[in-house]
Amino acid sequence: MKVGIFGSGRVGQTIGSKLATLGHEVMLGTRDPAKLTDWLAQTGGKARVGSIAETAAFGEILINATKGSASLSVLAQAGESNLEGKILIDLANVLGNPPDDATILVVANTDSLAEQIQRAHPQVKVVKACNTIGVGVIVDPRRLADGEHVMFICGNEAEAKAQVTELLTSWFGWRHIIDLGDLTKARATEMYIVIWITLLRKFGTPLFNINIVR
Amino acid sequence: MKVGIFGSGRVGQTIGSKLATLGHEVMLGTRDPAKLTDWLAQTGGKARVGSIAETAAFGEILINATKGSASLSVLAQAGESNLEGKILIDLANVLGNPPDDATILVVANTDSLAEQIQRAHPQVKVVKACNTIGVGVIVDPRRLADGEHVMFICGNEAEAKAQVTELLTSWFGWRHIIDLGDLTKARATEMYIVIWITLLRKFGTPLFNINIVR
Repeated sequence: MKVGIFGSGRVGQTIGSKLATLGHEVMLGTRDPAKLTDWLAQTGGKARVGSIAETAAFGEILINATKGSASLSVLAQAGESNLEGKILIDLANVLGNPPDDATILVVANTDSLAEQIQRAHPQVKVVKACNTIGVGVIVDPRRLADGEHVMFICGNEAEAKAQVTELLTSWFGWRHIIDLGDLTKARATEMYIVIWITLLRKFGTPLFNINIVR
Repeated sequence: MKVGIFGSGRVGQTIGSKLATLGHEVMLGTRDPAKLTDWLAQTGGKARVGSIAETAAFGEILINATKGSASLSVLAQAGESNLEGKILIDLANVLGNPPDDATILVVANTDSLAEQIQRAHPQVKVVKACNTIGVGVIVDPRRLADGEHVMFICGNEAEAKAQVTELLTSWFGWRHIIDLGDLTKARATEMYIVIWITLLRKFGTPLFNINIVR
């Protein structure tokens, strides 16, 4: 499968490397290709780097792994015809920039980044997922409690959510993906990141997640 | 122990009944005592009802179980000398009023209700706790997974947090209370309530909680 990933940071790189290892065709899209020279060398020719528009055109499925504060300006370069009808898995978190405002969200409560992206690009199918979990756990959920913990997903199209659920299950081995409903539920998962980062600092590791007890 | 609980709703009533059953002296404080006639009858004389100021004066420890949208105006009636030096366990959630705005918080992101209360009443020791959990689980954590799930606590005074942790353990049987840090961390736990209420609606029951998987 051709996967286009927006973002040159650790999240995009880690997911890109994992998907390349799994045999998928991967392009990382960035406004600054020089940042990805080392990453590209490590993938041994199994992945490529492109502009934002090239990545949008390349991917059969798209992943937003940019910083939440940059997502809208990055995606504005994608080109609407390149996005048309595709699924965009939005895993960006909306924290500000460390260190001062790293627990202040750039959008919260009455709106969410996922909804902003959906409004800006009505022809793409935004599915919010993965944003409540560190990337080391996203790509390998069974490293914690044999995968007995949860990911939340939301979006306006049931079929798109079902596809993303299937992909995350087959790619990474996710067992417990909870559909919270339409894209307004991204407010809930995006605000959760503040408790996640508080726990990250307390534990000193991003290798944790939550499970639901009933 | 004399416990003063602000709030006439189900949360205050349930905690008040439980504490009375455990042999504590309980007063529920409300601006509308008539709301508590039935509850008072059910407690069989083990509890009492008072004004906000009477309840603040009565309690050796205080609990804010009012609606978040009403907490500041209720506590304004407590009388500063009645609050002086006491611990206030703030378990209010900051959701708006159902049905329309029940997932919009009255304060979020750059401030929290707990911080607002602390600023308004600097002589009380605010400890945020219990606000991420339904009251049926708060008073009986072992009804879920034998108590293997978490409560978050935060506040500016270590000793006050230690006392609240001890109380919640001895009163209700809590096993896993995680200290998130100072009172700014209430932003994290208060924003978490949006995912909680989303799950409540999905599951159709408040009898759930989260556990941390590491």
